Amino acid sequence: MANGQGGPEIERLIGLLAKLPGLGPRSARRAALDLIKKRDRLMRPLAQALMDAANHITECENCGNLDACSPCNICAAPGRDQALICVVQDVSDLWAMERAAAFRGTYHVLGGTLSAIEGIRPEDLNIARLITRASRDGVSEIILAMNATVDGQTTAHYITDQLSGTGVSVSRLAHGVPVGGELDYLDDGTISAAMKSRRPF
Amino acid sequence: MANGQGGPEIERLIGLLAKLPGLGPRSARRAALDLIKKRDRLMRPLAQALMDAANHITECENCGNLDACSPCNICAAPGRDQALICVVQDVSDLWAMERAAAFRGTYHVLGGTLSAIEGIRPEDLNIARLITRASRDGVSEIILAMNATVDGQTTAHYITDQLSGTGVSVSRLAHGVPVGGELDYLDDGTISAAMKSRRPF
Ligand SMILES: [Zn+2]
Ligand SMILES: [Zn+2]
Repeated sequence: MANGQGGPEIERLIGLLAKLPGLGPRSARRAALDLIKKRDRLMRPLAQALMDAANHITECENCGNLDACSPCNICAAPGRDQALICVVQDVSDLWAMERAAAFRGTYHVLGGTLSAIEGIRPEDLNIARLITRASRDGVSEIILAMNATVDGQTTAHYITDQLSGTGVSVSRLAHGVPVGGELDYLDDGTISAAMKSRRPF
Repeated sequence: MANGQGGPEIERLIGLLAKLPGLGPRSARRAALDLIKKRDRLMRPLAQALMDAANHITECENCGNLDACSPCNICAAPGRDQALICVVQDVSDLWAMERAAAFRGTYHVLGGTLSAIEGIRPEDLNIARLITRASRDGVSEIILAMNATVDGQTTAHYITDQLSGTGVSVSRLAHGVPVGGELDYLDDGTISAAMKSRRPF
Protein backbone atom coordinates (compact mmCIF):
# COMPACT_ATOMS: atom_id res chain seq x y z
CA MET A 1 0.00 0.00 0.00
CA ALA A 2 3.00 2.33 -0.40
CA ASN A 3 1.15 4.42 -2.98
CA GLY A 4 -2.31 3.60 -1.75
CA GLN A 5 -3.26 1.57 -4.79
CA GLY A 6 -5.00 -1.57 -3.62
CA GLY A 7 -2.22 -4.02 -2.87
CA PRO A 8 0.76 -5.34 -4.82
CA GLU A 9 -1.22 -6.84 -7.73
CA ILE A 10 -2.83 -3.53 -8.69
CA GLU A 11 0.33 -1.53 -7.96
CA ARG A 12 2.33 -3.80 -10.24
CA LEU A 13 -0.27 -3.51 -13.00
CA ILE A 14 -0.34 0.28 -12.72
CA GLY A 15 3.46 0.43 -12.70
CA LEU A 16 3.67 -1.55 -15.95
CA LEU A 17 0.83 0.34 -17.65
CA ALA A 18 2.57 3.61 -16.77
CA LYS A 19 5.55 2.49 -18.86
CA LEU A 20 3.49 2.47 -22.06
CA PRO A 21 4.15 5.47 -24.29
CA GLY A 22 1.24 7.87 -23.92
CA LEU A 23 0.20 6.69 -20.45
CA GLY A 24 1.47 8.53 -17.37
CA PRO A 25 0.84 7.46 -13.76
CA ARG A 26 -2.56 9.12 -13.66
CA SER A 27 -3.88 7.59 -16.87
CA ALA A 28 -2.31 4.25 -15.88
CA ARG A 29 -4.45 4.28 -12.73
CA ARG A 30 -7.56 5.08 -14.76
CA ALA A 31 -6.68 2.33 -17.22
CA ALA A 32 -6.16 -0.21 -14.43
CA LEU A 33 -9.57 0.55 -12.90
CA ASP A 34 -11.21 0.41 -16.29
CA LEU A 35 -9.57 -2.94 -17.02
CA ILE A 36 -10.76 -4.38 -13.69
CA LYS A 37 -14.30 -3.18 -14.46
CA LYS A 38 -14.10 -4.82 -17.89
CA ARG A 39 -12.36 -7.94 -16.67
CA ASP A 40 -13.79 -10.42 -19.16
CA ARG A 41 -14.28 -8.23 -22.21
CA LEU A 42 -11.00 -6.28 -22.04
CA MET A 43 -8.57 -7.36 -19.33
CA ARG A 44 -8.33 -11.10 -20.09
CA PRO A 45 -8.40 -10.61 -23.89
CA LEU A 46 -5.62 -8.01 -23.62
CA ALA A 47 -3.52 -10.34 -21.46
CA GLN A 48 -4.02 -13.07 -24.06
CA ALA A 49 -3.28 -10.78 -27.02
CA LEU A 50 -0.06 -9.61 -25.35
CA MET A 51 1.03 -13.18 -24.67
CA ASP A 52 0.14 -14.28 -28.23
CA ALA A 53 2.06 -11.37 -29.74
CA ALA A 54 5.04 -11.95 -27.42
CA ASN A 55 5.14 -15.60 -28.50
CA HIS A 56 4.49 -15.23 -32.22
CA ILE A 57 5.54 -11.86 -33.58
CA THR A 58 8.89 -11.98 -35.30
CA GLU A 59 11.00 -9.78 -37.55
CA CYS A 60 10.74 -10.68 -41.23
CA GLU A 61 14.13 -12.05 -42.30
CA ASN A 62 13.66 -10.42 -45.70
CA CYS A 63 12.40 -6.90 -44.99
CA GLY A 64 12.49 -6.34 -41.22
CA ASN A 65 8.69 -5.95 -40.90
CA LEU A 66 6.98 -7.41 -37.82
CA ASP A 67 4.54 -10.25 -38.41
CA ALA A 68 3.63 -13.69 -37.11
CA CYS A 69 5.50 -15.28 -40.02
CA SER A 70 8.81 -14.79 -41.84
CA PRO A 71 8.88 -13.92 -44.70
CA CYS A 72 6.08 -11.57 -43.63
CA ASN A 73 2.65 -11.43 -45.25
CA ILE A 74 3.71 -8.48 -47.39
CA CYS A 75 6.88 -10.14 -48.71
CA ALA A 76 4.91 -13.34 -49.37
CA ALA A 77 1.89 -11.71 -51.01
CA PRO A 78 1.64 -12.75 -54.69
CA GLY A 79 -0.01 -9.44 -55.61
CA ARG A 80 2.87 -7.24 -54.43
CA ASP A 81 5.44 -5.99 -56.90
CA GLN A 82 8.80 -7.44 -55.80
CA ALA A 83 10.61 -5.10 -58.20
CA LEU A 84 9.79 -2.08 -56.01
CA ILE A 85 11.19 -1.66 -52.51
CA CYS A 86 10.09 1.22 -50.31
CA VAL A 87 12.67 1.87 -47.58
CA VAL A 88 11.25 3.15 -44.28
CA GLN A 89 12.80 3.94 -40.92
CA ASP A 90 10.41 2.00 -38.72
CA VAL A 91 7.54 -0.45 -38.80
CA SER A 92 5.20 2.41 -37.83
CA ASP A 93 6.12 4.09 -41.13
CA LEU A 94 5.36 0.89 -43.03
CA TRP A 95 1.95 0.82 -41.32
CA ALA A 96 1.34 4.46 -42.28
CA MET A 97 2.19 3.66 -45.93
CA GLU A 98 -0.14 0.66 -45.86
CA ARG A 99 -2.97 2.72 -44.39
CA ALA A 100 -2.50 5.23 -47.20
CA ALA A 101 -2.80 2.26 -49.62
CA ALA A 102 -0.64 4.16 -52.10
CA PHE A 103 2.01 1.50 -52.68
CA ARG A 104 1.81 -2.09 -53.93
CA GLY A 105 5.48 -3.03 -53.85
CA THR A 106 7.45 -4.41 -50.91
CA TYR A 107 9.22 -2.70 -48.02
CA HIS A 108 12.52 -2.61 -46.24
CA VAL A 109 12.55 -1.51 -42.60
CA LEU A 110 15.84 0.03 -41.48
CA GLY A 111 15.09 0.08 -37.76
CA GLY A 112 16.14 3.72 -37.36
CA THR A 113 18.47 6.21 -39.01
CA LEU A 114 22.16 6.89 -38.93
CA SER A 115 22.92 9.32 -36.14
CA ALA A 116 26.27 10.86 -35.24
CA ILE A 117 24.89 12.08 -31.91
CA GLU A 118 23.37 8.76 -30.87
CA GLY A 119 26.28 6.82 -32.38
CA ILE A 120 24.12 4.80 -34.77
CA ARG A 121 26.28 3.43 -37.59
CA PRO A 122 25.35 1.65 -40.85
CA GLU A 123 26.01 -1.75 -39.28
CA ASP A 124 23.48 -0.97 -36.54
CA LEU A 125 20.73 -0.70 -39.16
CA ASN A 126 19.15 -3.20 -41.55
CA ILE A 127 21.14 -1.77 -44.50
CA ALA A 128 23.42 -4.62 -45.63
CA ARG A 129 20.38 -6.81 -46.27
CA LEU A 130 18.86 -4.03 -48.39
CA ILE A 131 21.95 -3.88 -50.61
CA THR A 132 21.81 -7.67 -50.99
CA ARG A 133 18.12 -7.53 -51.92
CA ALA A 134 18.73 -4.71 -54.39
CA SER A 135 21.52 -6.68 -56.05
CA ARG A 136 19.77 -9.96 -56.62
CA ASP A 137 16.00 -9.82 -56.64
CA GLY A 138 15.29 -8.31 -60.04
CA VAL A 139 14.61 -5.07 -58.22
CA SER A 140 14.07 -2.08 -60.49
CA GLU A 141 13.48 0.80 -58.08
CA ILE A 142 14.21 1.67 -54.49
CA ILE A 143 12.00 4.40 -53.04
CA LEU A 144 13.52 6.12 -50.03
CA ALA A 145 10.77 7.12 -47.59
CA MET A 146 12.80 8.25 -44.62
CA ASN A 147 11.61 11.17 -42.54
CA ALA A 148 12.51 14.62 -43.87
CA THR A 149 14.92 15.16 -40.97
CA VAL A 150 18.69 15.66 -41.05
CA ASP A 151 19.31 12.09 -39.88
CA GLY A 152 16.70 10.69 -42.27
CA GLN A 153 18.26 12.47 -45.22
CA THR A 154 21.82 11.55 -44.17
CA THR A 155 20.68 7.93 -44.17
CA ALA A 156 19.06 8.37 -47.58
CA HIS A 157 22.32 9.73 -49.02
CA TYR A 158 24.32 6.90 -47.48
CA ILE A 159 22.01 4.26 -48.96
CA THR A 160 22.04 5.97 -52.35
CA ASP A 161 25.87 5.79 -52.32
CA GLN A 162 25.81 2.13 -51.38
CA LEU A 163 23.39 1.37 -54.22
CA SER A 164 25.37 3.27 -56.87
CA GLY A 165 26.96 0.12 -58.32
CA THR A 166 23.76 -1.92 -58.57
CA GLY A 167 22.07 -0.20 -61.50
CA VAL A 168 18.85 0.07 -59.53
CA SER A 169 17.16 3.44 -59.78
CA VAL A 170 16.68 5.30 -56.50
CA SER A 171 13.86 7.77 -55.84
CA ARG A 172 12.42 9.51 -52.83
CA LEU A 173 8.99 10.75 -51.76
CA ALA A 174 8.10 14.21 -53.00
CA HIS A 175 8.24 17.12 -50.62
CA GLY A 176 5.34 19.53 -50.67
CA VAL A 177 2.29 20.97 -49.00
CA PRO A 178 0.39 18.29 -47.05
CA VAL A 179 -3.11 17.69 -48.42
CA GLY A 180 -5.38 19.99 -46.45
CA GLY A 181 -2.34 21.85 -45.12
CA GLU A 182 -2.39 25.61 -44.77
CA LEU A 183 0.64 27.51 -46.01
CA ASP A 184 0.52 29.73 -42.98
CA TYR A 185 1.34 26.79 -40.72
CA LEU A 186 4.15 25.29 -42.81
CA ASP A 187 7.83 25.86 -42.25
CA ASP A 188 9.86 27.70 -44.89
CA GLY A 189 11.70 24.57 -46.03
CA THR A 190 8.46 22.82 -46.93
CA ILE A 191 7.14 25.85 -48.78
CA SER A 192 10.31 26.30 -50.81
CA ALA A 193 10.44 22.56 -51.57
CA ALA A 194 6.83 22.73 -52.75
CA MET A 195 7.69 25.75 -54.89
CA LYS A 196 10.69 24.02 -56.49
CA SER A 197 8.62 20.92 -57.29
CA ARG A 198 5.63 22.89 -58.62
CA ARG A 199 3.68 21.25 -61.40
CA PRO A 200 1.48 22.52 -64.25
CA PHE A 201 -2.11 23.10 -63.13
CA MET B 1 -3.78 -6.60 -43.32
CA ALA B 2 -7.01 -4.56 -43.55
CA ASN B 3 -5.43 -1.63 -41.71
CA GLY B 4 -1.88 -2.42 -42.72
CA GLN B 5 -0.79 -3.38 -39.21
CA GLY B 6 1.24 -6.53 -39.46
CA GLY B 7 -1.25 -9.37 -39.43
CA PRO B 8 -4.13 -10.36 -37.14
CA GLU B 9 -2.05 -10.75 -33.94
CA ILE B 10 -0.80 -7.17 -34.00
CA GLU B 11 -4.13 -5.79 -35.22
CA ARG B 12 -5.92 -7.49 -32.36
CA LEU B 13 -3.40 -6.16 -29.85
CA ILE B 14 -3.71 -2.61 -31.21
CA GLY B 15 -7.49 -2.84 -31.21
CA LEU B 16 -7.55 -3.82 -27.52
CA LEU B 17 -4.94 -1.25 -26.48
CA ALA B 18 -6.97 1.44 -28.24
CA LYS B 19 -9.86 0.67 -25.86
CA LEU B 20 -7.86 1.78 -22.84
CA PRO B 21 -8.85 5.21 -21.57
CA GLY B 22 -6.18 7.69 -22.64
CA LEU B 23 -4.99 5.67 -25.66
CA GLY B 24 -6.38 6.40 -29.12
CA PRO B 25 -5.60 4.41 -32.27
CA ARG B 26 -2.36 6.30 -32.89
CA SER B 27 -0.96 5.90 -29.40
CA ALA B 28 -2.17 2.27 -29.35
CA ARG B 29 0.01 1.60 -32.42
CA ARG B 30 2.98 3.27 -30.74
CA ALA B 31 2.35 1.27 -27.57
CA ALA B 32 2.11 -2.01 -29.52
CA LEU B 33 5.46 -1.41 -31.24
CA ASP B 34 7.06 -0.39 -27.97
CA LEU B 35 5.73 -3.53 -26.30
CA ILE B 36 7.11 -5.74 -29.09
CA LYS B 37 10.50 -4.05 -28.74
CA LYS B 38 10.41 -4.62 -24.96
CA ARG B 39 9.02 -8.13 -25.23
CA ASP B 40 10.65 -9.63 -22.13
CA ARG B 41 10.86 -6.63 -19.85
CA LEU B 42 7.42 -5.12 -20.54
CA MET B 43 5.15 -7.19 -22.80
CA ARG B 44 5.26 -10.54 -20.98
CA PRO B 45 5.24 -8.97 -17.48
CA LEU B 46 2.22 -6.85 -18.45
CA ALA B 47 0.39 -9.91 -19.81
CA GLN B 48 1.11 -11.71 -16.55
CA ALA B 49 0.10 -8.74 -14.37
CA LEU B 50 -3.19 -8.43 -16.26
CA MET B 51 -3.92 -12.12 -15.85
CA ASP B 52 -2.97 -12.06 -12.14
CA ALA B 53 -5.18 -9.04 -11.52
CA ALA B 54 -8.06 -10.55 -13.51
CA ASN B 55 -7.81 -13.73 -11.44
CA HIS B 56 -7.26 -12.25 -7.98
CA ILE B 57 -8.66 -8.74 -7.64
CA THR B 58 -12.00 -8.69 -5.92
CA GLU B 59 -14.33 -6.14 -4.35
CA CYS B 60 -14.03 -5.92 -0.56
CA GLU B 61 -17.28 -7.24 0.92
CA ASN B 62 -17.02 -4.66 3.69
CA CYS B 63 -16.11 -1.39 1.98
CA GLY B 64 -16.20 -1.94 -1.80
CA ASN B 65 -12.47 -1.31 -2.29
CA LEU B 66 -10.59 -3.42 -4.84
CA ASP B 67 -7.87 -5.73 -3.51
CA ALA B 68 -6.61 -9.29 -3.77
CA CYS B 69 -8.36 -10.14 -0.49
CA SER B 70 -11.72 -9.47 1.15
CA PRO B 71 -11.89 -7.81 3.64
CA CYS B 72 -9.35 -5.63 1.91
CA ASN B 73 -5.96 -4.69 3.35
CA ILE B 74 -7.33 -1.37 4.57
CA CYS B 75 -10.34 -2.87 6.36
CA ALA B 76 -8.08 -5.54 7.88
CA ALA B 77 -5.23 -3.22 8.93
CA PRO B 78 -4.95 -3.12 12.74
CA GLY B 79 -3.62 0.44 12.65
CA ARG B 80 -6.68 1.95 10.95
CA ASP B 81 -9.39 3.59 12.99
CA GLN B 82 -12.57 1.59 12.42
CA ALA B 83 -14.63 4.33 14.05
CA LEU B 84 -14.07 6.65 11.09
CA ILE B 85 -15.48 5.89 7.63
CA CYS B 86 -14.64 8.10 4.67
CA VAL B 87 -17.25 7.69 1.92
CA VAL B 88 -15.92 8.08 -1.64
CA GLN B 89 -17.51 7.73 -5.05
CA ASP B 90 -14.93 5.46 -6.63
CA VAL B 91 -11.82 3.42 -5.91
CA SER B 92 -9.77 6.09 -7.70
CA ASP B 93 -10.88 8.56 -5.01
CA LEU B 94 -9.84 6.13 -2.28
CA TRP B 95 -6.41 5.91 -3.97
CA ALA B 96 -6.18 9.71 -4.10
CA MET B 97 -6.98 9.92 -0.37
CA GLU B 98 -4.37 7.27 0.40
CA ARG B 99 -1.73 9.08 -1.66
CA ALA B 100 -2.47 12.23 0.31
CA ALA B 101 -1.92 10.13 3.47
CA ALA B 102 -4.28 12.46 5.34
CA PHE B 103 -6.66 9.82 6.73
CA ARG B 104 -6.09 6.79 8.93
CA GLY B 105 -9.66 5.54 9.20
CA THR B 106 -11.48 3.17 6.83
CA TYR B 107 -13.38 3.79 3.60
CA HIS B 108 -16.65 3.06 1.94
CA VAL B 109 -16.74 3.04 -1.87
CA LEU B 110 -20.17 3.87 -3.32
CA GLY B 111 -19.40 2.92 -6.91
CA GLY B 112 -20.76 6.17 -8.32
CA THR B 113 -23.36 8.79 -7.42
CA LEU B 114 -27.10 9.07 -7.60
CA SER B 115 -28.07 10.51 -10.97
CA ALA B 116 -31.52 11.41 -12.19
CA ILE B 117 -30.26 11.74 -15.76
CA GLU B 118 -28.41 8.43 -15.85
CA GLY B 119 -31.13 6.74 -13.78
CA ILE B 120 -28.81 5.69 -10.96
CA ARG B 121 -30.85 5.00 -7.82
CA PRO B 122 -29.77 4.33 -4.21
CA GLU B 123 -30.11 0.57 -4.71
CA ASP B 124 -27.64 0.76 -7.61
CA LEU B 125 -24.94 2.03 -5.24
CA ASN B 126 -23.15 0.50 -2.24
CA ILE B 127 -25.29 2.52 0.19
CA ALA B 128 -27.30 -0.08 2.14
CA ARG B 129 -24.07 -1.69 3.32
CA LEU B 130 -22.84 1.72 4.53
CA ILE B 131 -25.96 2.19 6.69
CA THR B 132 -25.44 -1.28 8.13
CA ARG B 133 -21.78 -0.53 8.90
CA ALA B 134 -22.70 2.81 10.47
CA SER B 135 -25.32 1.15 12.67
CA ARG B 136 -23.26 -1.64 14.12
CA ASP B 137 -19.53 -1.15 14.03
CA GLY B 138 -19.00 1.36 16.83
CA VAL B 139 -18.62 3.97 14.14
CA SER B 140 -18.38 7.54 15.46
CA GLU B 141 -18.05 9.65 12.30
CA ILE B 142 -18.83 9.36 8.63
CA ILE B 143 -16.86 11.75 6.41
CA LEU B 144 -18.51 12.36 3.06
CA ALA B 145 -15.85 12.88 0.39
CA MET B 146 -17.97 12.90 -2.74
CA ASN B 147 -17.04 15.21 -5.60
CA ALA B 148 -18.28 18.79 -5.31
CA THR B 149 -20.70 18.23 -8.18
CA VAL B 150 -24.50 18.37 -8.18
CA ASP B 151 -24.77 14.57 -8.25
CA GLY B 152 -22.04 14.19 -5.61
CA GLN B 153 -23.81 16.58 -3.27
CA THR B 154 -27.25 15.05 -3.94
CA THR B 155 -25.76 11.72 -2.93
CA ALA B 156 -24.22 13.28 0.18
CA HIS B 157 -27.61 14.67 1.22
CA TYR B 158 -29.33 11.34 0.61
CA ILE B 159 -26.77 9.48 2.74
CA THR B 160 -27.01 12.09 5.50
CA ASP B 161 -30.79 11.54 5.60
CA GLN B 162 -30.37 7.79 5.75
CA LEU B 163 -27.91 8.10 8.63
CA SER B 164 -30.08 10.50 10.66
CA GLY B 165 -31.39 7.76 12.98
CA THR B 166 -28.02 6.19 13.75
CA GLY B 167 -26.53 8.85 16.03
CA VAL B 168 -23.32 8.83 13.99
CA SER B 169 -21.96 12.29 13.22
CA VAL B 170 -21.65 13.16 9.55
CA SER B 171 -19.07 15.58 8.15
CA ARG B 172 -17.79 16.53 4.73
CA LEU B 173 -14.50 17.71 3.30
CA ALA B 174 -13.96 21.46 3.45
CA HIS B 175 -14.36 23.56 0.32
CA GLY B 176 -11.69 26.14 -0.35
CA VAL B 177 -8.81 27.35 -2.43
CA PRO B 178 -6.65 24.39 -3.58
CA VAL B 179 -3.11 24.54 -2.18
CA GLY B 180 -1.06 26.41 -4.76
CA GLY B 181 -4.25 27.52 -6.50
CA GLU B 182 -4.55 31.05 -7.89
CA LEU B 183 -7.75 32.93 -7.17
CA ASP B 184 -7.82 34.21 -10.70
CA TYR B 185 -8.37 30.68 -12.02
CA LEU B 186 -11.03 29.57 -9.55
CA ASP B 187 -14.75 29.62 -10.15
CA ASP B 188 -16.96 31.92 -8.11
CA GLY B 189 -18.49 29.08 -6.09
CA THR B 190 -15.10 27.98 -4.80
CA ILE B 191 -14.11 31.52 -3.92
CA SER B 192 -17.31 32.22 -2.04
CA ALA B 193 -17.07 28.84 -0.24
CA ALA B 194 -13.51 29.67 0.76
CA MET B 195 -14.67 33.08 1.98
CA LYS B 196 -17.50 31.62 4.08
CA SER B 197 -15.16 29.07 5.65
CA ARG B 198 -12.39 31.60 6.30
CA ARG B 199 -10.29 30.98 9.40
CA PRO B 200 -8.26 33.18 11.73
CA PHE B 201 -4.74 33.74 10.44
ZN1 LIG C 1 8.86 -8.99 -45.10
ZN1 LIG D 1 -12.38 -3.01 2.60
